[in-house]
Amino acid sequence: MSSTSRIITLTTDFGSRDYYVSAMKAVILGISPNVRLVDISHDIPPQDVMAAAWILKNTAFLYPPGTVHLAVVDPGVGSMRKPLLVKIRDQFFVGPDNGLFSLVMEDETSEVIELDNRSYWRDAISATFHGRDIFAPVAAWLCEQDPEEGIGKFGTELTELTRYKWAKPISDEEGIQGWIVHIDRYGNLITNIPDTLIKEKNIRSNVKIYAGNTILKKISRSYTDVPDGEAIALIGSSGMLEIAINKGSAEQMLGIEKGAPVSLVVQKNVS
Amino acid sequence: MSSTSRIITLTTDFGSRDYYVSAMKAVILGISPNVRLVDISHDIPPQDVMAAAWILKNTAFLYPPGTVHLAVVDPGVGSMRKPLLVKIRDQFFVGPDNGLFSLVMEDETSEVIELDNRSYWRDAISATFHGRDIFAPVAAWLCEQDPEEGIGKFGTELTELTRYKWAKPISDEEGIQGWIVHIDRYGNLITNIPDTLIKEKNIRSNVKIYAGNTILKKISRSYTDVPDGEAIALIGSSGMLEIAINKGSAEQMLGIEKGAPVSLVVQKNVS
Amino acid sequence: MSSTSRIITLTTDFGSRDYYVSAMKAVILGISPNVRLVDISHDIPPQDVMAAAWILKNTAFLYPPGTVHLAVVDPGVGSMRKPLLVKIRDQFFVGPDNGLFSLVMEDETSEVIELDNRSYWRDAISATFHGRDIFAPVAAWLCEQDPEEGIGKFGTELTELTRYKWAKPISDEEGIQGWIVHIDRYGNLITNIPDTLIKEKNIRSNVKIYAGNTILKKISRSYTDVPDGEAIALIGSSGMLEIAINKGSAEQMLGIEKGAPVSLVVQKNVS
Repeated sequence: MSSTSRIITLTTDFGSRDYYVSAMKAVILGISPNVRLVDISHDIPPQDVMAAAWILKNTAFLYPPGTVHLAVVDPGVGSMRKPLLVKIRDQFFVGPDNGLFSLVMEDETSEVIELDNRSYWRDAISATFHGRDIFAPVAAWLCEQDPEEGIGKFGTELTELTRYKWAKPISDEEGIQGWIVHIDRYGNLITNIPDTLIKEKNIRSNVKIYAGNTILKKISRSYTDVPDGEAIALIGSSGMLEIAINKGSAEQMLGIEKGAPVSLVVQKNVS
Repeated sequence: MSSTSRIITLTTDFGSRDYYVSAMKAVILGISPNVRLVDISHDIPPQDVMAAAWILKNTAFLYPPGTVHLAVVDPGVGSMRKPLLVKIRDQFFVGPDNGLFSLVMEDETSEVIELDNRSYWRDAISATFHGRDIFAPVAAWLCEQDPEEGIGKFGTELTELTRYKWAKPISDEEGIQGWIVHIDRYGNLITNIPDTLIKEKNIRSNVKIYAGNTILKKISRSYTDVPDGEAIALIGSSGMLEIAINKGSAEQMLGIEKGAPVSLVVQKNVS
Repeated sequence: MSSTSRIITLTTDFGSRDYYVSAMKAVILGISPNVRLVDISHDIPPQDVMAAAWILKNTAFLYPPGTVHLAVVDPGVGSMRKPLLVKIRDQFFVGPDNGLFSLVMEDETSEVIELDNRSYWRDAISATFHGRDIFAPVAAWLCEQDPEEGIGKFGTELTELTRYKWAKPISDEEGIQGWIVHIDRYGNLITNIPDTLIKEKNIRSNVKIYAGNTILKKISRSYTDVPDGEAIALIGSSGMLEIAINKGSAEQMLGIEKGAPVSLVVQKNVS
C-alpha cells in the first residue's frame, strides 16, 4: 500500500477560466508531490454552498479510505467563519465552516477540528483566497501523514459547527411531500425523497405523483420504460426520486425549477 | 515498463456540474489505485452518440498501447442495449452498444465482448447509471491485468453490434459532395471529406468550394494564408477539409450549421 | 526526488468539447509516460493571448521547480511566428512567440530558445495544430531530461521575441489611473493597479476610487467588510486592486467591462 498515492478531491465554485484552481493545485504539489488530484466539480453555482454539499454527499464515500476532500465554496472568506477539518468514517473533509459538510455529516459520527495551527498554512494569508492559503496546504500536509494518525495537530477540537438541515420530505398516511433539490445536466429533476421512504410506504405503483402540471401514475425503473419524449418518475442513481423525460430535458419540457414541490399521493383501493 | 501506470481515458456527456464523473473515478480508483485518469471530454452534447464517436476517432489511437477508453453516452441505459468491451489494435474501448464505437471500428479488425460476467461489476446495479456500476469497474479491472492477456473473462464474444455508418462523401467526376460533421470551439466547420480523397482527385487548386452562400476558390494550407476575417478552406488537424475564418468564427460569420452540405466542384480547363 | 514525477501544466483556448486537449496529452504520455499533467485552464477566450498571459503570471511561479508550462493560444499557427521554449527562474514555458509569455517575463531574466530542432517534434507537422505536433512533444522531451540540464538542444538561442507590455497604471501626485484587466467567474473586477503602488503612495484610506458610476471611499480588507450586495474595493489574491460586490457580481451590478478605467484620487487634508 505504501506505493499507492493518497487522493485529494477538489470541489469548488471557481469555474474553469481563472487561475484559482491551478493555484490550489500548485500549492498542494509543492507540499505533497506524489498526491493524486481528482476534480469533482469546479462548476458549483457561485457561492451555492448547499449545491456543493449535495455533490459531496453523493460522491465522497465512494472514494478509497484516506481520501481528502478539499471543498471551497466560501462566500464568507475573510470574515470570522472558521476553517475546518472534519473526519467522517475513513474520509477527511477540509473547507470553511458554512454548512458545506452538512449533508455528509447527516447521521454520521465525526471528528471536527478548527484549523487554527498556522504552521500548516502558507506564510502569507490573503483575505480573499483561503483555498490557496489555508485549505490547500492543510489538505496536502494531511496526505503527508498516515491516514490512521490523529488530526489534532492541525488545530482545536470543535463541538459545534454550522449545519444546515435540508428540508426533509413530509410523510403521512396521505403520501409524501418533497422538493426538487438538484437539476442535472440532462434536465433530470432530482427530489429529496429517498428510495427508502418510498419502499417503507410500499407505494411504487399505487401512487399519483404531482410535479408542476404533470401527473404520473407510477414509479418506473429506467428512462426507457416510456416512449421517447414522455415524462417518467424513477429512482435515480443517487437513490432519490427523480422526474425525467426519456431522451429529453424535464427541466425544459415541464418548466419546473429547483425548489418546486413534488407530491406523492397514495391511491386507496376502492373496493 | 512495470512502473508505468495504465491509462483510462473518459469521454462522456455528463457535463462538469454533477457528481457523475467523480463517481466513476472513485469506483475506478477503488479497484485500480495506480491507474492514470485522462479526461477526453465530458461536454459531448447530451445523448449525442455520434459526436462522441467522432471525438474518439480523432484521439484514441494517439494514446500509448494498452490504454482503456471509457466512453459513456448512454441514452438507452437500463434498456436491453448491451454493455461492450472492444479491442482494436492495442487499444481497449468500454461503453454501451449504441454506435459509440462505429468510427473507431471503421475498416479495423476488432474483438468484441458483451459484458455479461457480473463478477466484474459493482454489487448493486442501478437502472440509470451503468457508467458507475458496470463500465467504470470493468475498465478498472482491465487495467489490473496484463495488456496482452485475453479479454474473454469479461463476457461473451459478440459478432454483431450496433454500427452507424457516417454518410460518406459522394465523389464523381464532377467533384465531391460532403457535409459539416463537427463545429469546434473556434467555429471552424469540419467536413467529412478526407484529405486522401482530395489528393486522389488532385483538386487542391482547380476547384470551387460551395458552403452556404460562400464560394472559395482553392484549398489553402494554414489559417493565416488569408487576411484576418476572411474565409478559407484547408485541411484541418483531423485530416478533413475544414471551412474557417482567419481569427474569427466561420460558424457565426457564415451562418452555417452542423449537417450543412459542402460541395467541391472540379474546374475544367477551358483551352 | 527521483521518484517524484515532473509536472506539465496546460493552458489553452481549446475549450472542453473537442479532442484537442486530449491529443496533446496523448502525445505527451507517449513520450513521457510518468509525467504529471495539470490543467490550468482550457477556457481562455478564443485567441485572447493576453488573457492567457495573465493567468500564467498569477499561477506559474507557485509550481515546484522544474515544472513545464505548456501554453497554446495560437491564432498565428502555420504562419512565420516562432515556436518558443523559455526558462525563467526554475520554470519552463513552451508555446508560440506571440506575447503569451510577456507577463511572466516582466522584469525577469530569462533564457529563450527558438524551437527549430525537428528531432523533438512529431514526424508529421500539420499547419493548424502545433500544440499537438511541436509544443506537446517538446514539453514531454523536456521532462525526460534533468531540470538542471541545458535547453540548447531544442533549438537556437533567441535574443528578441514578441513582448506586449501591459499598460502600466499612471501614477502622479493626484492619484493613480488604471484599468480593469480581468473579470473573474464571480464578476470581480480586477485592475492593473498593484498593492505595492498603493502602499508606496500610502493611500488606503485617504482616497476616492472611481469605477463607472460608482465611487468608493476606501480600500477594505475582505469582501465581508461591507453588507451583502454592497460594492467594495480591496486587494485581491493576485495582489491587485479589485472592485467587488459582497455576495454578488460587480460585473453585472455595476455594468463595468474589461478595459474600463479605474481612478484613485488622493484626498488632501483640508486643515
